[in-house]
Amino acid sequence: MAKMATVQIELGDRGYAIYIGNGLLENAGTYKGLPAAYAALIVSNTSVAPLYAQRLRNALRMQYAQLHEVVLPDGESHKDWHTLNLIFDGLLQHGCDRRTVLFALGGGVIGDMTGFAAACYMRGVPFVQVPTTLLAQVDSSVGGKTAINHPLGKNMIGAFYQPQLVVCDLDTLDTLPARELAAGLAEVIKYGPIADMELFAWLEAHMDALVARERGALAHVVKRSCEIKAAVVGADEREAGLRAILNFGHTFGHAIEAGMGYGVWLHGEGVAAGMVMAAHLSQRLGLVDGSFVERLTRLIERAGLPTRGPVLDAQDNAGRYLELMRVDKKAEGGEIRFVLIDGPGKAIMRAAPDALVREVIDQCCAS
Amino acid sequence: MAKMATVQIELGDRGYAIYIGNGLLENAGTYKGLPAAYAALIVSNTSVAPLYAQRLRNALRMQYAQLHEVVLPDGESHKDWHTLNLIFDGLLQHGCDRRTVLFALGGGVIGDMTGFAAACYMRGVPFVQVPTTLLAQVDSSVGGKTAINHPLGKNMIGAFYQPQLVVCDLDTLDTLPARELAAGLAEVIKYGPIADMELFAWLEAHMDALVARERGALAHVVKRSCEIKAAVVGADEREAGLRAILNFGHTFGHAIEAGMGYGVWLHGEGVAAGMVMAAHLSQRLGLVDGSFVERLTRLIERAGLPTRGPVLDAQDNAGRYLELMRVDKKAEGGEIRFVLIDGPGKAIMRAAPDALVREVIDQCCAS
Repeated sequence: MAKMATVQIELGDRGYAIYIGNGLLENAGTYKGLPAAYAALIVSNTSVAPLYAQRLRNALRMQYAQLHEVVLPDGESHKDWHTLNLIFDGLLQHGCDRRTVLFALGGGVIGDMTGFAAACYMRGVPFVQVPTTLLAQVDSSVGGKTAINHPLGKNMIGAFYQPQLVVCDLDTLDTLPARELAAGLAEVIKYGPIADMELFAWLEAHMDALVARERGALAHVVKRSCEIKAAVVGADEREAGLRAILNFGHTFGHAIEAGMGYGVWLHGEGVAAGMVMAAHLSQRLGLVDGSFVERLTRLIERAGLPTRGPVLDAQDNAGRYLELMRVDKKAEGGEIRFVLIDGPGKAIMRAAPDALVREVIDQCCAS
Repeated sequence: MAKMATVQIELGDRGYAIYIGNGLLENAGTYKGLPAAYAALIVSNTSVAPLYAQRLRNALRMQYAQLHEVVLPDGESHKDWHTLNLIFDGLLQHGCDRRTVLFALGGGVIGDMTGFAAACYMRGVPFVQVPTTLLAQVDSSVGGKTAINHPLGKNMIGAFYQPQLVVCDLDTLDTLPARELAAGLAEVIKYGPIADMELFAWLEAHMDALVARERGALAHVVKRSCEIKAAVVGADEREAGLRAILNFGHTFGHAIEAGMGYGVWLHGEGVAAGMVMAAHLSQRLGLVDGSFVERLTRLIERAGLPTRGPVLDAQDNAGRYLELMRVDKKAEGGEIRFVLIDGPGKAIMRAAPDALVREVIDQCCAS
């Protein structure tokens, strides 16, 4: 096996390891430590399966008596009950019982749906994350949040359910479209303002290398991102408090995704524009100064990401954003809880006056 | 408040109380100990809502700023994703956030669906069981098993998710159809052979009083059933071992329910005939003698329950039963795990030769 880094998620008997390195996916040794099981079901999508499913099958062949595969349509617009049910159909058609391990081979949508299917199938079977996008490697495959969308809200139906193992094979990033690489960088950038300005400075120095997919640079940000997320999730698995800081940029971002229709803007793109908005809101509340907002905006731009939100309603754009944000999971009794930056490197949760939020939206949206 | 018994489920920070008594449902005091929340959503069905929803609303009115209601179609045939989604629709249409408590007002189907909805909505909101059938009071509302059916299998999609409180109001049993009362008695009878032959002897002495719905007799069996279930669930929440004994009669019973089409036989009716089959299988394996099988069969009969299974396939009835039992959740690698009686009052899990199982099915099915 090639050189590999390991980040441990400390959650007692629900703890697990994240492996980060090259050539991991196709190496049978990667999976040796998993609990014994009879069958494995690989869940992937029409874009990723042709690239990597056979390699994963080869690696798993000796370990499981039965090896099955379900290939789902690709994209956030398919992250719904109908598509989830294809996983249950596959499990039941193959007669899979509780001694079955699910492998999520793909990006965040595959990981979220496979994890939720594993949480629910026969009230819970084990699963492994094999994320093949940068976004999934640095964020969504770590921490046990699983979900599907509902027509009235993103990720509204799901479970906290931890995987047995996360395998981040950096080789899979070679085949990632540029737009998706950039979307992943949004979540990497996020860790700076909320937790680690050293990482932020490192990103300022190495953004060009990341966009050029230099191996060493990618390895560094995947590892550092997983370390930060591991620390946050280990302290607050079920988002009672601290964990919510990981949603910096997400309140505005979710409104963008929902308002545009899921899949039109990528999640990371919504988060990127959302972080700029949240930074401006932080500035207007006197929490950070303008130079920080400019640094953040500049870094997001260099990653090839949008720094302005879309217009969701020509008549009352700010009103539409507010309406969508009020049904976000983080809202409480109709009050929107924003993740704001209380000085670079530190996040806080708080509400903000509607008038101020409207000003920020007006300022930050393309017209 | 009227005289009330309390049974405690010991599961650490997931522990909760079962209240058993008369007049509990409509008494605001019943719900005072629940964690603070902003909204409550009552989930009921078209049979139960007209009888009890208004009383529950009155009791909850002072405690929650918002009070909503979703009324589902009645019956096991509706225990599917489509119906579950009506709960999510209601929650989202009313803008319910995480500070929402779900109340399951109805029988086992309502409890299973409401509990699963609570487990999944925004990755988990609290819920309260208000079971209005004997079956739900003595079995399904206690222990945190929630699920929906899949066309290929019963309860295949679900979660272990504990309620905050279970309110067994014995008054609601007055309106229960006789067939459903009998179905509930099947689960009461079950606790005898697997755990408590003293209860079994008590049932032999008081079965007529139970069928006549004598208050004191019902109060005794609900309390004793909950105590036994509490002890089993407290020792094995996620069915790693001991808890599986609660499925005595259920392996054959699930095959009957699935083979006849969900809802044709009531769950308790399938369990009743299934217990007779499992008892015969135990006898053929030399674990109990014929007199015990006769006592059990006689008691089931006196409860107004079927003691013989239906013919599921005129050509190869035993083959059809075996086929259905192999996809049961308790099966492992295609091997059926039966809950058998290893002497009255003690259950064990074990496999049995197909030929022996076929003989039992041939012997125990109506032709």
